[in-house]
Amino acid sequence: MVNIGLLGAGRIGMIHAASVGGVEDAQVAAVFDPDESAARTACDLTGAPSATVPEIMADPDVPAIIVATPTDLHADLVEQASMAGKVVFCEKPIDLDAGRVRACLKTVERMQTRLMIGFNRRFDPSFARVKAEIESGSVGEVEMIQITSRDPSPPPIDYLRRSGGIFRDMMIHDFDMVRFLFGEEITEVSATASVLIDPAIGDAGDYDTASATLRTASGRIAVITNSRRTAYGYDQRIEAHGSNGMVQADNHRTTSVSVSSTGGQIAALLKPFFLERYAQAYRREIETFCALAAGNDVPYPDGQDGLKALELADCALLSVKEERTVRCWNPD
Amino acid sequence: MVNIGLLGAGRIGMIHAASVGGVEDAQVAAVFDPDESAARTACDLTGAPSATVPEIMADPDVPAIIVATPTDLHADLVEQASMAGKVVFCEKPIDLDAGRVRACLKTVERMQTRLMIGFNRRFDPSFARVKAEIESGSVGEVEMIQITSRDPSPPPIDYLRRSGGIFRDMMIHDFDMVRFLFGEEITEVSATASVLIDPAIGDAGDYDTASATLRTASGRIAVITNSRRTAYGYDQRIEAHGSNGMVQADNHRTTSVSVSSTGGQIAALLKPFFLERYAQAYRREIETFCALAAGNDVPYPDGQDGLKALELADCALLSVKEERTVRCWNPD
Amino acid sequence: MVNIGLLGAGRIGMIHAASVGGVEDAQVAAVFDPDESAARTACDLTGAPSATVPEIMADPDVPAIIVATPTDLHADLVEQASMAGKVVFCEKPIDLDAGRVRACLKTVERMQTRLMIGFNRRFDPSFARVKAEIESGSVGEVEMIQITSRDPSPPPIDYLRRSGGIFRDMMIHDFDMVRFLFGEEITEVSATASVLIDPAIGDAGDYDTASATLRTASGRIAVITNSRRTAYGYDQRIEAHGSNGMVQADNHRTTSVSVSSTGGQIAALLKPFFLERYAQAYRREIETFCALAAGNDVPYPDGQDGLKALELADCALLSVKEERTVRCWNPD
Amino acid sequence: MVNIGLLGAGRIGMIHAASVGGVEDAQVAAVFDPDESAARTACDLTGAPSATVPEIMADPDVPAIIVATPTDLHADLVEQASMAGKVVFCEKPIDLDAGRVRACLKTVERMQTRLMIGFNRRFDPSFARVKAEIESGSVGEVEMIQITSRDPSPPPIDYLRRSGGIFRDMMIHDFDMVRFLFGEEITEVSATASVLIDPAIGDAGDYDTASATLRTASGRIAVITNSRRTAYGYDQRIEAHGSNGMVQADNHRTTSVSVSSTGGQIAALLKPFFLERYAQAYRREIETFCALAAGNDVPYPDGQDGLKALELADCALLSVKEERTVRCWNPD
Repeated sequence: MVNIGLLGAGRIGMIHAASVGGVEDAQVAAVFDPDESAARTACDLTGAPSATVPEIMADPDVPAIIVATPTDLHADLVEQASMAGKVVFCEKPIDLDAGRVRACLKTVERMQTRLMIGFNRRFDPSFARVKAEIESGSVGEVEMIQITSRDPSPPPIDYLRRSGGIFRDMMIHDFDMVRFLFGEEITEVSATASVLIDPAIGDAGDYDTASATLRTASGRIAVITNSRRTAYGYDQRIEAHGSNGMVQADNHRTTSVSVSSTGGQIAALLKPFFLERYAQAYRREIETFCALAAGNDVPYPDGQDGLKALELADCALLSVKEERTVRCWNPD
Repeated sequence: MVNIGLLGAGRIGMIHAASVGGVEDAQVAAVFDPDESAARTACDLTGAPSATVPEIMADPDVPAIIVATPTDLHADLVEQASMAGKVVFCEKPIDLDAGRVRACLKTVERMQTRLMIGFNRRFDPSFARVKAEIESGSVGEVEMIQITSRDPSPPPIDYLRRSGGIFRDMMIHDFDMVRFLFGEEITEVSATASVLIDPAIGDAGDYDTASATLRTASGRIAVITNSRRTAYGYDQRIEAHGSNGMVQADNHRTTSVSVSSTGGQIAALLKPFFLERYAQAYRREIETFCALAAGNDVPYPDGQDGLKALELADCALLSVKEERTVRCWNPD
Repeated sequence: MVNIGLLGAGRIGMIHAASVGGVEDAQVAAVFDPDESAARTACDLTGAPSATVPEIMADPDVPAIIVATPTDLHADLVEQASMAGKVVFCEKPIDLDAGRVRACLKTVERMQTRLMIGFNRRFDPSFARVKAEIESGSVGEVEMIQITSRDPSPPPIDYLRRSGGIFRDMMIHDFDMVRFLFGEEITEVSATASVLIDPAIGDAGDYDTASATLRTASGRIAVITNSRRTAYGYDQRIEAHGSNGMVQADNHRTTSVSVSSTGGQIAALLKPFFLERYAQAYRREIETFCALAAGNDVPYPDGQDGLKALELADCALLSVKEERTVRCWNPD
Repeated sequence: MVNIGLLGAGRIGMIHAASVGGVEDAQVAAVFDPDESAARTACDLTGAPSATVPEIMADPDVPAIIVATPTDLHADLVEQASMAGKVVFCEKPIDLDAGRVRACLKTVERMQTRLMIGFNRRFDPSFARVKAEIESGSVGEVEMIQITSRDPSPPPIDYLRRSGGIFRDMMIHDFDMVRFLFGEEITEVSATASVLIDPAIGDAGDYDTASATLRTASGRIAVITNSRRTAYGYDQRIEAHGSNGMVQADNHRTTSVSVSSTGGQIAALLKPFFLERYAQAYRREIETFCALAAGNDVPYPDGQDGLKALELADCALLSVKEERTVRCWNPD
């Protein structure tokens, strides 16, 4: 039985707690949240006691930690947990500042602990199938990837102000997906962005509509488009074009029902947003973390993956500002 | 908190137990299964104690019963539970003999208790959506229904021998669906059946491929096709044609992924069988039963629905044998 | 250059004339239509002279005849043309009376001439592809066929009165398709029919909604559904289920465009009716006839195919009237 | 009857000749091609005499000219025809050099004649439907367009050498489509290109895989992806995302047939290439030109459309070379 400490019992923390509950041989063993009511709800759900961060870090019976606090606490908690020798799951991003992320990852590296980043989409059965098809060679050498990612509606302006902007908050998932599917580092980024939905988003220094074009050293191209609004649900599609064919992940609908009438054939709406669309992904992600915490050797998105996606977001923003293609920082 | 007694802890019993676990304000409070190991597993899952049938029937703190035993015990247990004043959920069919079912339903009627039959497909979100579209009037007056229901592979011959045959075991779900969607009783049945997959099925006195055509008093027509084998997964489709349009429920696939290559575009396989395809339906069915057990007024398939679907199966079999259209027994 | 005599310059005659015009090495060489204006239009289109039936029958330079007159002239003209040694294309049906058809076919047989019946759907690229898939073995042994055929709206009552009824006028195409795809004769027919769209259709002694179930000697089953009305265009679909899979021909839409909005995803309407849906089929049918007329050995629907489809229509009507399964006349 | 002079009787010239043949009140009245055999074939098809360019230009009975010669003759012939007062249809591009195009357009402007450019895709029923949906307001204000355009295989290297490169030869159609759909000029272009299919394409100074991101003054974004190879046919898709929804034009398949088997559901291949995919577009384009030649007021892509698409191609190439966003020349 792997005991897991849960730091943060907000919406996403509760989802992870429920996922741990579905894993045999794993349980939430302690909960921390500064909000007492949130902490209590999580304790009720899991049957675990409430505890302080130092208590959890010091508890030798809790070898694994889930960090699901607000972003500004991520890096500190990851460092503490790593220094305590724990296996850590941290929601993305580790920090909005790439320098702070690098410092955090140095600690993790020095401590030789394992850090998994919450790029949940890698665990979506459809997207994982895209990856599997690519690895099986069924489409040959992948040459171009196209990702469409469109939210149903913009988050509150307050959220946007603290989010790091559309590239660091929203497109970061797509940057990670491109790296995951290509299996090759990005060397050039060119991006464009506009405010077309709500001027208040522009006033907050952000964009609501954006695209980015990525290129690898071998010349592969990825194109990402993002929008903060659709009329038709949560639009999440991937195409990977290879020398022998194309693999596509299409959208997921609420039902398989359509109505044909004088206006044509009307298919059901898409799943409304990420909680519904990625419900399986969240479960499988935590199953993977529990396997990791139990000492198994399973593939997972690590700290470097978190850092690189953030760096690509920074490159994209720079490209928008300077109207030029940006060569990526390359650690090698 | 509604306490529910679980009779039968086989595969479907365990699914229902898990579903009860997901319902707030409901719990499995006692488990009976003659197989000790099965009972123990169910007790472990639910935290409920093992008990005998008489104990459960006599327990005033258990107002609701789920009957998930082998079919030959259904009618007796329904009668006992009804006489004990309990709300009962019974897996279909109540009995393979329509006379026995009628006798059982008389008891239930006399006791004025509620009996819900496990026609889970009514609770599938896609099929429920078909019903809702019909009721909304979006396709006008429904004139014709087409149901395709094809299993991935035949069950063992031993199962078939005890099953009552393809019409009572498999097509019974489609008979219920036609009644559910039409909202009008069937008055004529004409059916055809063949043994095309495995001669052993014919040797057991059954068919593996069948179709039935149903007609209502107002002249509406329903066509059902069944097969015990597909190469491509579990094929479950419904079409309802009305005066203003058609509503369709299409199949459900394992992922939204397709591969386009020199051979065309290959979409993912269908969900393999009923446990995967109807996972949501099983959960929603038990949620409805728990609401019923809590005294709420919710629509549900009752004993008469169970009887009428069985009678249609009997008519279909008679139609095959006598090569003629069979007029249905009509209670009114 | 094959010279073709066109008998009948109505709507379908003009379509065939245009198709001949698109075939290299074939031309319409003479046109007959009692309506002078229709004849003149056809002459203008084709550049061919107008002529009487006896002139065309006697002309040794016209070895091939297209019969596109009203149905009641078909059998006589086929016989005359056959006795004149000509290759004949005749629109379906040869006659509404099976006895008259048999007599006509005896003449054709005695004269040893070739007679092609206008079952155009065999030449539709999608349906021909279904046939090719079956013959390739890609779905194994075919066990069940499902055909959905729904017109956008009923024809005028006057037309219906002379049409022979829904089974001989509309479902006859589907009977031929089942025989074409199975490659095995039908031995049993069971049918149901209703008047649900327009009581005037019932007053005319016809039905507007019908289904039929066919069975072969080896136990294969085919299910056909027909309706004289849809709200969504011309609904023409085929499924063939085999031991190794299923092949489907789906509907054809006017464009590949869809609109996704708050109501879901709306795909374009189906092609409106047979002229649009089967435009390619009509062309390919006449190409085949021209090849036949040029002495080539190509597969084609012949007089026996015309007769057998009509007999199945008669069986279906009898089944409706007598509420029983009808065993088919079998020549062998 | 409008008499049309055909200059150039190669593959595309013959397609246009056949299209003219299908237009009532229009005919090809004279054919020029330096290749005698090509000229003769066109004369046979159309019934028109062969003539020299000066003869056609001087013929007052030929008010309209189709220029379907090799590209290097386009500008000269357009100028001659314009000075002769004729209505001109010219295949794209007018010239590969934007300066030469501007000079040619000045002549056309001075002569006040009408010049239609062969952007056939505007006339494709599906793409025209996308335009119509946008104009109807069904998706609100359009904010983003995504175009996928992928050829089945690269043209011969010799062709590529004379083609002006992937942006001027292939993506030029997509540049025109973006302008057509946005109804607003592009102000910024950023492009990326690679050689991933065949190094010989790179040796010829061209690319085989490319993407471009366009932006309008109001901040709308368009993303285009091109590849010279697919394994699965001719991939031609458009999406326009608006404030109230999305309109998509999906690919066109050879048939509506799919096969479902143990590997999944296999849909038919896409139409192989542009002649099949855009057959209707070519016809409708020439119908529009004939209407124009007959003096009707119909919308059509004119010389400025031809110039602007070429300028966008030049901007894209510059963007690739200089790795920066290029601000477009703007005439206003």
